[in-house]
Amino acid sequence: MSISSKYFPNEPSAPEVKTAFPGPKSQEAVKSLDTVFDARPVYFVADYEKSNGNYIVDVDGNTYLDVYAQIASIPLGYNNPALAEVAKSDKMIRAIIDRPALGNFPGKDTQEIIQSLLDVAPKGQDKVWSGLSGADANELAFKAAFMWYQSRKRGYKTDFTTEESKTVMENQSPGSPDLAVLSFERAFHGRLFATASTTRSKPIHKLDLPSFKWPKAQFPSYKYPLEEHSKDNEEEDKRCLAIVEDAFKNAAAPIAAVLIEPIQSEGGDNHASKAFLQGLRDITINHGALLIMDEVQTGVAATGKFWAHEHFDISPAPDMVTFSKKFQSAGYYFHDPEIIPNVAYRQFNTWCGDPARMLLAGAIGAEVKKNDLGAAVARVGDYLYKKLDALAKKYPDFINNLRGKDRGTFIAWSFKDAPLRNQFLSDIKKEGINMGGCAEDSVRLRPTLVFEEKHADILTAAIEKVLATY
Amino acid sequence: MSISSKYFPNEPSAPEVKTAFPGPKSQEAVKSLDTVFDARPVYFVADYEKSNGNYIVDVDGNTYLDVYAQIASIPLGYNNPALAEVAKSDKMIRAIIDRPALGNFPGKDTQEIIQSLLDVAPKGQDKVWSGLSGADANELAFKAAFMWYQSRKRGYKTDFTTEESKTVMENQSPGSPDLAVLSFERAFHGRLFATASTTRSKPIHKLDLPSFKWPKAQFPSYKYPLEEHSKDNEEEDKRCLAIVEDAFKNAAAPIAAVLIEPIQSEGGDNHASKAFLQGLRDITINHGALLIMDEVQTGVAATGKFWAHEHFDISPAPDMVTFSKKFQSAGYYFHDPEIIPNVAYRQFNTWCGDPARMLLAGAIGAEVKKNDLGAAVARVGDYLYKKLDALAKKYPDFINNLRGKDRGTFIAWSFKDAPLRNQFLSDIKKEGINMGGCAEDSVRLRPTLVFEEKHADILTAAIEKVLATY
Repeated sequence: MSISSKYFPNEPSAPEVKTAFPGPKSQEAVKSLDTVFDARPVYFVADYEKSNGNYIVDVDGNTYLDVYAQIASIPLGYNNPALAEVAKSDKMIRAIIDRPALGNFPGKDTQEIIQSLLDVAPKGQDKVWSGLSGADANELAFKAAFMWYQSRKRGYKTDFTTEESKTVMENQSPGSPDLAVLSFERAFHGRLFATASTTRSKPIHKLDLPSFKWPKAQFPSYKYPLEEHSKDNEEEDKRCLAIVEDAFKNAAAPIAAVLIEPIQSEGGDNHASKAFLQGLRDITINHGALLIMDEVQTGVAATGKFWAHEHFDISPAPDMVTFSKKFQSAGYYFHDPEIIPNVAYRQFNTWCGDPARMLLAGAIGAEVKKNDLGAAVARVGDYLYKKLDALAKKYPDFINNLRGKDRGTFIAWSFKDAPLRNQFLSDIKKEGINMGGCAEDSVRLRPTLVFEEKHADILTAAIEKVLATY
Repeated sequence: MSISSKYFPNEPSAPEVKTAFPGPKSQEAVKSLDTVFDARPVYFVADYEKSNGNYIVDVDGNTYLDVYAQIASIPLGYNNPALAEVAKSDKMIRAIIDRPALGNFPGKDTQEIIQSLLDVAPKGQDKVWSGLSGADANELAFKAAFMWYQSRKRGYKTDFTTEESKTVMENQSPGSPDLAVLSFERAFHGRLFATASTTRSKPIHKLDLPSFKWPKAQFPSYKYPLEEHSKDNEEEDKRCLAIVEDAFKNAAAPIAAVLIEPIQSEGGDNHASKAFLQGLRDITINHGALLIMDEVQTGVAATGKFWAHEHFDISPAPDMVTFSKKFQSAGYYFHDPEIIPNVAYRQFNTWCGDPARMLLAGAIGAEVKKNDLGAAVARVGDYLYKKLDALAKKYPDFINNLRGKDRGTFIAWSFKDAPLRNQFLSDIKKEGINMGGCAEDSVRLRPTLVFEEKHADILTAAIEKVLATY
């Protein structure tokens, strides 16, 4: 029995569109919601009680096959019964109502919960620090990186100088040093102030926010299909690595860490090659900086491996790997004990994560392992990619640069411009598919991990139906 | 029947200390936990299953009367049955396992959940934006403030110039302008990068982190008892307000917002007067800046009113009020529609809060209202303050500057130095009281909202028992 049939015996067999998009009840609800909450970005108002597996139902009774999945963050389908069991457990109830200050008063089950996150740690990582969102995870990783960088510089002493303690309260050096995180054009790492300083995908994410004047480099732009342009793409890797080298040499402030998504997601599903990531690893080691792999969107089996960067087997392993979204909990994995700040209470806050969400993350990881969902996603992704590749040959004007071969269901393609992409996203909803875009001209597929061949058939039929009208 | 008896028929009648602090099982558990998680700040490992009402139990079977309450963040006692009902509800289970991207796909119960937060909004506020922690709430408020400031400057146009859109991607002005938030010496607003730039209580919170070079002012330091030093304290208010005026006049970068705790908590339980806060309100209005009231620690009835700044009735109301901790959910209240960014997707992220935690916040607010816990806390606080005041007269060397009269159970006092304070915090644990410090030389009481006279009797008896040995 397929995993989706096992989890979801009552999953709809097909989308069902009953109204225009959005339906009248959604429109009414949005109007009302907007009086208390900014409802301008709402697609539709969902009925989560009726949503099931890969299908999201709205308040008008429309049933959509969901390949956007709450911006890539529903792991195992709507109302997954295995997760519902965890949500009903006494442990979860206590995690909700007796939320601890985890760093001061952990509970007797805290170690078990943390171990459940470590059970699916990326290769080479054996420690974790917990946070609350992808942006939070990245900023916590930055903090660890800066503390590590300065600690090494002062010879691992645990005493701070009077001058450091005094100047930091004035937001001045040396207590508050001028250090940087290097990120890449088109990157998305979050929208808090330090993460926004590393996010470079769209102006709307950060207009009017003060920022740290941190440097950037270029993320490779490959020619597709990859196998037909290997020489050009190798040159592109070299060009972009040289820019990173230059950034280190010309840095106005020391670069403590390089931050990268193995696949830039919000920025357009731009994939990095193994050679590029290994080159980056080598440069960071040469320059004494950390390598932070942002797996907020790529993590948790969507690419066919639990962590996307495991496709590349770079060596040594990244220094930190950040996570959130499909894992429902957030934080960073690491392995070097020197990344634990040298004095207690430096990496600290009231809650230090949310045990309720960590408990859920542990259960998600266990389900993925138990059902070998990585292999399942790889299999379904291969099936889906081939069907899309065939469509790309049939409709070459509308499926450009198909990306994500051998990367599970983490698949995207481009249209020739933004208006056409937007038209497509609007038209595909009329066919009962909830899909999201990325960058200006691309669409990204982000189904759950229980998306199977039968769903891929429905999806590709709907895509072809729309493209045939263009 | 008292509220604690109603909620907690099986609440222990007194603390019970069976082992040294921390006990052998705690020590063993910490040693093990430390292999996967930074356990250096752990006080003890708790048994939340056995904890009940105002009492926290550890894995050694010690039972502590808890007047620290997870760093001021347990609202209604451990294992509160009313909150347990909410945690078991179908709505909660769905909020946990079908976590939405709330800005794009709200559920049919989203408005009701948001309304439940608004039901306890501070006077003058009627809108809310949701986040995940106190630091997150403050940074979200900063974002709204900066967007508001620049939007007003460009005449509320919804178009950005090409130059703005280009420069923001380079982290340069005018797209990323040089703007500031003014905060106060000894303030604590969080430990992310922008909030850390406004936090000025202890070096350990932010050493080695790059910061925004934002200005600071001085928070009043009053002489106690307040009623005996009203003239000096009025002068102190004027002196500190003049510093704020100067900060605006001499600002290197425009100040978009002033951020203040009505009672600086982590920084030492420093109370602000009505005159100071009203003066601040007047200055912000004169200079076209927003006033952000950080009620992360002071909010949710601990001072006898639902929001601490409601004691002062400043006019007009603050522009934003941030919350977290005892509310379990986080975010900011506001009222001016101009604080909603002028274009969709500017204040946005994947989750836009956590409906599971928002559902709990709504239930906490409803319980506080239904049981009039604000009035109960005011009554108990008055009782407790009087007993402590009597102890202060009996032990004047060990209870200095008793603070929190007419502020519910939000009470603190100082010792003559840090070693003595630390000794007291160690000794009081041996009497079965879990208590926390603030600043270098003070202790702060942060019991739950169901802390009653009988608990106050136990607490003050333990305090006296310790002080009598000094």
